[in-house]
Amino acid sequence: MATLKIWTDGEVAADARVKAVFDDIRATRQTDFVNNLWRALANQPDVLERTWAQVKAVMVAPGALDPLTREFIYIAVSTAHSCGYCVHSHTAAAKAKGMTPAQHAELLAVIGLASQTNALASALQLPVDAEFLS
Amino acid sequence: MATLKIWTDGEVAADARVKAVFDDIRATRQTDFVNNLWRALANQPDVLERTWAQVKAVMVAPGALDPLTREFIYIAVSTAHSCGYCVHSHTAAAKAKGMTPAQHAELLAVIGLASQTNALASALQLPVDAEFLS
Amino acid sequence: MATLKIWTDGEVAADARVKAVFDDIRATRQTDFVNNLWRALANQPDVLERTWAQVKAVMVAPGALDPLTREFIYIAVSTAHSCGYCVHSHTAAAKAKGMTPAQHAELLAVIGLASQTNALASALQLPVDAEFLS
Amino acid sequence: MATLKIWTDGEVAADARVKAVFDDIRATRQTDFVNNLWRALANQPDVLERTWAQVKAVMVAPGALDPLTREFIYIAVSTAHSCGYCVHSHTAAAKAKGMTPAQHAELLAVIGLASQTNALASALQLPVDAEFLS
Amino acid sequence: MATLKIWTDGEVAADARVKAVFDDIRATRQTDFVNNLWRALANQPDVLERTWAQVKAVMVAPGALDPLTREFIYIAVSTAHSCGYCVHSHTAAAKAKGMTPAQHAELLAVIGLASQTNALASALQLPVDAEFLS
Amino acid sequence: MATLKIWTDGEVAADARVKAVFDDIRATRQTDFVNNLWRALANQPDVLERTWAQVKAVMVAPGALDPLTREFIYIAVSTAHSCGYCVHSHTAAAKAKGMTPAQHAELLAVIGLASQTNALASALQLPVDAEFLS
Repeated sequence: MATLKIWTDGEVAADARVKAVFDDIRATRQTDFVNNLWRALANQPDVLERTWAQVKAVMVAPGALDPLTREFIYIAVSTAHSCGYCVHSHTAAAKAKGMTPAQHAELLAVIGLASQTNALASALQLPVDAEFLS
Repeated sequence: MATLKIWTDGEVAADARVKAVFDDIRATRQTDFVNNLWRALANQPDVLERTWAQVKAVMVAPGALDPLTREFIYIAVSTAHSCGYCVHSHTAAAKAKGMTPAQHAELLAVIGLASQTNALASALQLPVDAEFLS
Repeated sequence: MATLKIWTDGEVAADARVKAVFDDIRATRQTDFVNNLWRALANQPDVLERTWAQVKAVMVAPGALDPLTREFIYIAVSTAHSCGYCVHSHTAAAKAKGMTPAQHAELLAVIGLASQTNALASALQLPVDAEFLS
Repeated sequence: MATLKIWTDGEVAADARVKAVFDDIRATRQTDFVNNLWRALANQPDVLERTWAQVKAVMVAPGALDPLTREFIYIAVSTAHSCGYCVHSHTAAAKAKGMTPAQHAELLAVIGLASQTNALASALQLPVDAEFLS
Repeated sequence: MATLKIWTDGEVAADARVKAVFDDIRATRQTDFVNNLWRALANQPDVLERTWAQVKAVMVAPGALDPLTREFIYIAVSTAHSCGYCVHSHTAAAKAKGMTPAQHAELLAVIGLASQTNALASALQLPVDAEFLS
Repeated sequence: MATLKIWTDGEVAADARVKAVFDDIRATRQTDFVNNLWRALANQPDVLERTWAQVKAVMVAPGALDPLTREFIYIAVSTAHSCGYCVHSHTAAAKAKGMTPAQHAELLAVIGLASQTNALASALQLPVDAEFLS
């Protein structure tokens, strides 16, 4: 159970401000499915509106990184933060955007390796090489 | 100062086992520069050899993710772990592999957004949608 | 299932040292309900006694921060550590101490924003401004 | 050294889009001092504008939490993420907003205690009490 | 549900490369039980082989730290990363290797204390004493 | 610079409550050297007294884990939390308690491996095996 109520479609439909965001999520993603993050943020319309505007700007709008690469980065951050919900939702998103099993395998390998060398660098308290600072 | 001695080139040259790894790092990366991570791991040849073998397999060998995408993932993990050394070294690596300022800007935007929604999902303790589990 | 046995009220009653702590928890909080953290720490009386003494000193005793503000801080730390149990227990505590929905919404907004700018500062490896060090 | 250039006032003045944000920061905070976070984000105007808009909405606008309480929460999150820059900047902000030494002492005590019980709950893998889920 | 399929014994038996690793895990650990980490990594034979080789070298081979001490360290890291799966699997491993209840209690006490002083040091942004750098 | 004043020996000597703690630290550790953590906590005598009492109980008192093993655990937690100060101070403590280079190498290897498999388990969202819950 979440710490806030998960809104049903009926509750969303009865609140004009929340409904407007959900309508835009559905139109943008071209699906009727709206996941629980948004249904919980519905309790807090300010946070809901700001978060969706940011997701739309960062994850949906065309840019210098293709949409699948953005999902790889999202999964990497979510994994490092031990956010189970986020790992599930963005792994599903990456698969929907065409992530292959081979790409998934390499994504995990890089995340695992980075976590290991991050720990080694932390335990070693390495000074940053001058070459990296120029 | 690191918690272990940072080996000089002279010390490396005098140790056959460490020298073999450094020679391979230099040949693989086609540069004489070897950064402090390896110079500290030189104190621990087992860890040095295993770590380099893994870096070579995961970050250098051809695969399903292009080398720059792997660096994006590495930076994302390193940022989430607050590993200053790793952020510096892999941002430098990404630039060397052609990361554009526009890509860097988007990388930071995705990392920032993911960190924010990770926190929201954690504070909300969201149940995973059934749609993500199928 | 926990990694240690969760003690029942019957088991607590049969152990004088554990019972003394539970009696104090119940008297201090003016409720019969004792949550699972304490029922698991019951296996380790030293840790149980020290932890409760610290909770009592830091969270219950009068001080410079009102009790609800302390819960906000507790939720912020627990969220950043991805501690689901702690988020649940301290969100419940904050509600019991009068947290309003509007306060909860702002708490989440600040936690989300801080997580985002923390990540940006980490990815940017910002030098601390001289103005912050005086 | 940061991973992106720290903009000087001269460079800011020469870029209309960045200048507009800096002008608003200075007007809003009623000080000429603009810290390094914004000077680094100046390289990425989209991120700069979105981040400042969010900071203004979450940290500056009147709301249900007073400004000092928001800083306590910010410091708690920044501490948990080991973000040195953020701890410094928001401790300075909290002092500027009137944080007393006694409040600072209690803030640290709550952060320390929460970090400890977060770890205990994580090591114990506690099931959430039914009472917290209703 | 995991983000990758959990392989059954039947599926393992039908894949020579995966079967070889599982055979070695079973022979090395002298038990038929193979836990879900390996059954999920079976989808990615490269990661499976490298990870098992590393576990064998670091956790199984004789060395300067006894096997139980290595498990204490593993539990400490897993707790700090909020990795529920890892806390469960390595607490079980530690018990299998003879961890006593008194040792478990002290392990938790040290992890809890370290988490607390880590947070204090982070909130205080302490300069490293010269004595620690010599 | 720390976020709180680092007390000099002169300032400590002039404050009876702080002096009592410092006297006990020096007597217990049999050295005149008192590191910066305590000199910063001197600003907050309640936190100072409680933290030292806990360190004395957990790290100094005889118990089921030998003192060096406790330092290994402390280093592991500090590394995972990216606490530079703590890594430095407890690596120095471990060396003072007799940690050999070979033990240090293995400690780093276990921390690195655990960090890697923690990340894999997080990215895989593994269900806990029934065998671990009995």
